Amino acid sequence: MPAFDFTPLLAPDLPPPAPKYGGFPKFNFVGGHNDPSLIPVDALIAAAQAVIRREGPTLATYSMSSGPLGYRPLREFLAAKMKRHASIDCSPDDVLMVSGSQQGLDMINTLLLAPGDTVLVERDSYGGMLSRYTRLKVKTVGVDLDDDGMNPQALEKALADLKAKGVKPKYIYLIPTVQNPTGSIMSEARRLAILKIAESHGVPIFEDECYSDLIWNGQRPPAFYALTKTDNVIHLGSFSKSIAPAVRIGYIVCKPSLMPQIRALKTDGGVGALDQMIIAEFCLNHFHDHVARLSKGLRGKLEVLMESLSERFGTAAEFGDPPGGIFLWIKLPDVVDTQKLAQVALAEGVALNPGPEWSTDKTYAKSRLRLCFANPDHATIRAGVAKLAEVCQREFGVPVRSANIEAARS
Amino acid sequence: MPAFDFTPLLAPDLPPPAPKYGGFPKFNFVGGHNDPSLIPVDALIAAAQAVIRREGPTLATYSMSSGPLGYRPLREFLAAKMKRHASIDCSPDDVLMVSGSQQGLDMINTLLLAPGDTVLVERDSYGGMLSRYTRLKVKTVGVDLDDDGMNPQALEKALADLKAKGVKPKYIYLIPTVQNPTGSIMSEARRLAILKIAESHGVPIFEDECYSDLIWNGQRPPAFYALTKTDNVIHLGSFSKSIAPAVRIGYIVCKPSLMPQIRALKTDGGVGALDQMIIAEFCLNHFHDHVARLSKGLRGKLEVLMESLSERFGTAAEFGDPPGGIFLWIKLPDVVDTQKLAQVALAEGVALNPGPEWSTDKTYAKSRLRLCFANPDHATIRAGVAKLAEVCQREFGVPVRSANIEAARS
Repeated sequence: MPAFDFTPLLAPDLPPPAPKYGGFPKFNFVGGHNDPSLIPVDALIAAAQAVIRREGPTLATYSMSSGPLGYRPLREFLAAKMKRHASIDCSPDDVLMVSGSQQGLDMINTLLLAPGDTVLVERDSYGGMLSRYTRLKVKTVGVDLDDDGMNPQALEKALADLKAKGVKPKYIYLIPTVQNPTGSIMSEARRLAILKIAESHGVPIFEDECYSDLIWNGQRPPAFYALTKTDNVIHLGSFSKSIAPAVRIGYIVCKPSLMPQIRALKTDGGVGALDQMIIAEFCLNHFHDHVARLSKGLRGKLEVLMESLSERFGTAAEFGDPPGGIFLWIKLPDVVDTQKLAQVALAEGVALNPGPEWSTDKTYAKSRLRLCFANPDHATIRAGVAKLAEVCQREFGVPVRSANIEAARS
Repeated sequence: MPAFDFTPLLAPDLPPPAPKYGGFPKFNFVGGHNDPSLIPVDALIAAAQAVIRREGPTLATYSMSSGPLGYRPLREFLAAKMKRHASIDCSPDDVLMVSGSQQGLDMINTLLLAPGDTVLVERDSYGGMLSRYTRLKVKTVGVDLDDDGMNPQALEKALADLKAKGVKPKYIYLIPTVQNPTGSIMSEARRLAILKIAESHGVPIFEDECYSDLIWNGQRPPAFYALTKTDNVIHLGSFSKSIAPAVRIGYIVCKPSLMPQIRALKTDGGVGALDQMIIAEFCLNHFHDHVARLSKGLRGKLEVLMESLSERFGTAAEFGDPPGGIFLWIKLPDVVDTQKLAQVALAEGVALNPGPEWSTDKTYAKSRLRLCFANPDHATIRAGVAKLAEVCQREFGVPVRSANIEAARS
């Protein structure tokens, strides 16, 4: 018999098939990968030993002995950490563990969005979320950003424009603490201004804090979730950036009135128990020191990246000095089309995020790009930037005076 | 300001909010929980130590060094195990790791089903799947079962009836190897007959094998996936029953032509790395012996359950002697309404699955129930059955001559 053809049976409106996996690029400046040398191997082994010894038999029960929200010691750690770090006053029962913040994004979108809906986002925002909106047929309204994050006047205007058209947006998606891709941290005053506008329009805020643990000086303002007086904020966090992305642990924080409806969308039987148990055990003893050490290492890599860019691109590459995170948002001369650059560079082993994929304004972002610096080591960062400058010079004539391309230096 | 009300913003057609978690019942005969005393604690600790020591730094990369299908050593183990155990000849690249078979169910349903679609299922089938169909507004056609699983004549008739109505079902959902809830294992001849009918109607088979490792004598026929000549089978498996349900590791096996479309539906960044790595390391050395030991323990519990039922219910409880699994499907006298029994029993600490939730034929299943025996220990099984008989006698007058209710015996 001929091979079976599933095509006529597929559900309508599926996402396009996943592209073939091309392997890990030589110069990987994309994705939320972290520094392999900063994975706390010894402490994770000790944590695994202790927690499996003590609680291993609970693996026989779905959700261990913790109920459907996830491993309780981890939720307790998170409640305490968010209190200390982000001024969030919540109970462990307000925290739902999810399989990375990506599952959290999908769940909150399922909760609130239907095709044709509208959301407000920072003009430049997480590409994985923007592509989700496209797939969901949700309209995005990009709101201008400055060094302090989303601009309140621009938000007020966008909301007024929508209101005039009879459109009620479903939420405002914000990455206020280490913004993706700009790296900015929104001040408390700005947060209060944004919150006031959102509340006056009856629009909730979806706050994504998945980078907020990685701040060079450790200082940050209270989360939107901590500042709201009306409980119009849903908060999302993750251990992907602060410990390890392969470990799939994120968390949604919301008020008790909303939790049962969100829980109903978690139909996969919980988050991996060994991931949760080992990370919880690790965090109780080591989270603070680990994040300090990791941040120091990442800051060092950012400096190497900025130096390399200055050396190879000169004034052709404009960028700020972000206070935290794992990426740098860069402006190249207007002649450069970063989507084209990304294609050509990838063929030579350099992976980067072209600006238009990280922005609602494709024209504004045409010559911008995002480079993630957490994964490659110092020598690889230097060699990758050199290679990128070489490709960019060849394709677009900038940087004008191409520096000599040296071999990678350690 | 008043508290924010999310209700008007919720997406349409959400599932109902999750019920309040009531804690773990005293006599827990529901769910896929396993035996805490049979969790291989020492071997898991050794596996965690070895694999984190060797590969811990790869946690810094999404999907470790394994690409988007999941941890490669685990997929290699699975390909070899499925070859040996189920005659499945597949490459590790045909295996996609998912967060428990529950995520696999959701993904395959998303792949193929839209509201109004029709699927064929065994008349008695997994309650979690039947409730998914209800939520998805998918119509189910139940096909009669006998001791050898789905009846081919009944399947042929169901397909002919649908064809006459112009309905093309999306798939046939089968649990052929330790059927849920009947526990039967379909013979190879029956599989071939079912496959022939499915192929002649151009209908694929969705084969769920999440209990197939737990067989008392270790013997089983080839999987449908191994027997198809047309590649019309999607295969689903899990480690929840063979190792631990809290560890969220399932897998989808499909042909290369379908994999990119299925992969596109896995948007959560992969399966927990520590779960995958530790279980893979454990399995390479211990899977076979562990499953043999676990099966022996479960067989012992089944015997205690069958003895207790005979002792407490006499001939009022009819059941077979399943060749594997973690549950027993029981018929009580017609006067018993097991949905009502479940409610009353739960109030006294006995949790059970009423038949109508595990069947497409609510009348047929009215006096039937499913009891899972893997989690409670021998004494708890005995005491739970005694309590159940007491409740059943009081509510429905059966068993007629109620045995004395003794204290739980160890």
